[in-house]
Amino acid sequence: MSTPGHATSVPDSRVAILAHEKFPDRSKTANGVLRYADREVVAVLDRNRAGERVADHLPAVQDAPIVDSFAAAREHDAVGGIDELLIGIAPIGGGFDESWRPDVRSAIRAGCDVTSGLHYFLGDDEEFAELAAEHDVRLHDVRRPPEDVGVADGRAGEVDAEVVLTVGTDCSVGKMTTTMELAAAAETAGIDTAVVPTGQTGIVIEGWGTPVDRVVSDFTAGAVEEMVLAVGDDHDLVLVEGQGSVVHPAYSAVTCGILHGAQPDALVLCHAHGREAVHGYEATPLPPVGAFVDRYESLAAPVHETEVVAGSLNTRGVGDDAAAREAVTQFEAAVDAPAADPLRFGTDELLEAVR
Amino acid sequence: MSTPGHATSVPDSRVAILAHEKFPDRSKTANGVLRYADREVVAVLDRNRAGERVADHLPAVQDAPIVDSFAAAREHDAVGGIDELLIGIAPIGGGFDESWRPDVRSAIRAGCDVTSGLHYFLGDDEEFAELAAEHDVRLHDVRRPPEDVGVADGRAGEVDAEVVLTVGTDCSVGKMTTTMELAAAAETAGIDTAVVPTGQTGIVIEGWGTPVDRVVSDFTAGAVEEMVLAVGDDHDLVLVEGQGSVVHPAYSAVTCGILHGAQPDALVLCHAHGREAVHGYEATPLPPVGAFVDRYESLAAPVHETEVVAGSLNTRGVGDDAAAREAVTQFEAAVDAPAADPLRFGTDELLEAVR
Repeated sequence: MSTPGHATSVPDSRVAILAHEKFPDRSKTANGVLRYADREVVAVLDRNRAGERVADHLPAVQDAPIVDSFAAAREHDAVGGIDELLIGIAPIGGGFDESWRPDVRSAIRAGCDVTSGLHYFLGDDEEFAELAAEHDVRLHDVRRPPEDVGVADGRAGEVDAEVVLTVGTDCSVGKMTTTMELAAAAETAGIDTAVVPTGQTGIVIEGWGTPVDRVVSDFTAGAVEEMVLAVGDDHDLVLVEGQGSVVHPAYSAVTCGILHGAQPDALVLCHAHGREAVHGYEATPLPPVGAFVDRYESLAAPVHETEVVAGSLNTRGVGDDAAAREAVTQFEAAVDAPAADPLRFGTDELLEAVR
Repeated sequence: MSTPGHATSVPDSRVAILAHEKFPDRSKTANGVLRYADREVVAVLDRNRAGERVADHLPAVQDAPIVDSFAAAREHDAVGGIDELLIGIAPIGGGFDESWRPDVRSAIRAGCDVTSGLHYFLGDDEEFAELAAEHDVRLHDVRRPPEDVGVADGRAGEVDAEVVLTVGTDCSVGKMTTTMELAAAAETAGIDTAVVPTGQTGIVIEGWGTPVDRVVSDFTAGAVEEMVLAVGDDHDLVLVEGQGSVVHPAYSAVTCGILHGAQPDALVLCHAHGREAVHGYEATPLPPVGAFVDRYESLAAPVHETEVVAGSLNTRGVGDDAAAREAVTQFEAAVDAPAADPLRFGTDELLEAVR
């Protein structure tokens, strides 16, 4: 069974990442690809930092030169083969910045595929569509919902793999990061692992997947189920990237559909230390962290029994490591399971809990 | 603020309902319009029952002649003005049956709008689209998702009206029926009431609304919020038609989005007596009815506190009234709230509980 949804680049392809004026602090997708993707990054495009290197800013990821344009990336590239240009940033609103047009144009003319998670679809841009046809390259708009998803059959629980889903107390608490860190650690430990990406950054990193938040709401669970079934019998561990929160005023539908569609055997509850209200909905206070454990478990149980086996705490807002360790200890007590901050303290506790 | 989503016919318009070969046992939408809609039904089209009357089959709804074609409906109609043809049946798969084409064609030529809840969109049919333009009539495909819905702001709880949502233990347990019966009883009792329709039958009955199960999953809550905000300050009671079940293997996303988007003040829990497994997912047993009360309340609470104030039991499968009354009494105990079977025993208990 081939993987559903988008299929962008293949492993080991060579990519350039566009991140103009946003690297590294506002380039989530670029950073995710640098950190997690199984591809060689030839260069990062940021006209404000041309001449610097990725390693000057992000020490723990693959290094690459920073250049001011796609043309410069080709000049820098001794091997001479760039397979793909990734749009590694997403402005508020998801639009296409016209200042990027020359880079996209050059990439297509050089025979590169272009992958984008923007709301603005490159494939609907007349110039790009024509150029792409002329040069026989593909434009991957990973946020475009696939047309062939359908209603869930309730069968994801049947796969051979242990299926683990990251769930959260809110948006932007670390579900994607936790998923990717766990995947890397599991692979290092020799566990045959697959990630099921559900959002545009995850899809760009993994090179395949369905943007679950963009499918028709009746097909939310079906879109996730299809992905779990596609990889679940060929791996020992499947890590499903969760979205939102089950008590989010706007996005709970997506969360609930993923929970029931993936039929996970275990959950990792993700939280950002100090988050007290729903991000962007400050009038809505978050319930106590511990209450999320029961809420996720009892909501999942009638469809597929599952358990919060670990917690993942984002302590970025905590100044020193001692205070961060104390925060993790408190979080462990609240969720009544082993916990860690994967970026700060590694994933040992989490991997032990889910394997 | 005008009502969002589709706006089909206006109250007091005169309609014909197409229900060929399906009336009355497999014509859910036709029956709903006959029973609940604020419109005069000129005729029902069913070529298998031409010459009979609606009252021969459905005693408690408005009567109308049954005819074999739209042309015959016009001949029968002494007043001479039919405003709209409704497609009142939905075959499995939601396709358009070519045997209906002459009726739709005749209706358009006669200057009638045509309203359909099919998956097949009449507006995408070349012949119908051309004819409709020529005769200046509108084709309402109520299942087509509107393009202008967006992310919820979390504001539905601010409206002046008491907002009541029907929730369920499963699909097809009576949420739409309970909503409509309650609305009729409330209007009779002099309560200024609005229904927020979320599915195609409700939309056809009410003449407006957004098919929440067809919107992009990120906008599920937003679609419902928009409707509640549109009517919530102009009425004293708003009844939101629920969908699915929060522990449904395929459709829980829609249910959860409606629960958080509508921010209801009260819930009516609907159940079909004897239902023991999820309909169509027989390997998934339903949890005990009482467990749904806590599940819905605790899921809703962080966004907007609410309470199951009444239960609605569908006892259609129960032979005699005494046994049905006993079933309702047991259901009352299970949900710890007043309960009724609205179609069998009326809505007094429910209306008392929600007003």
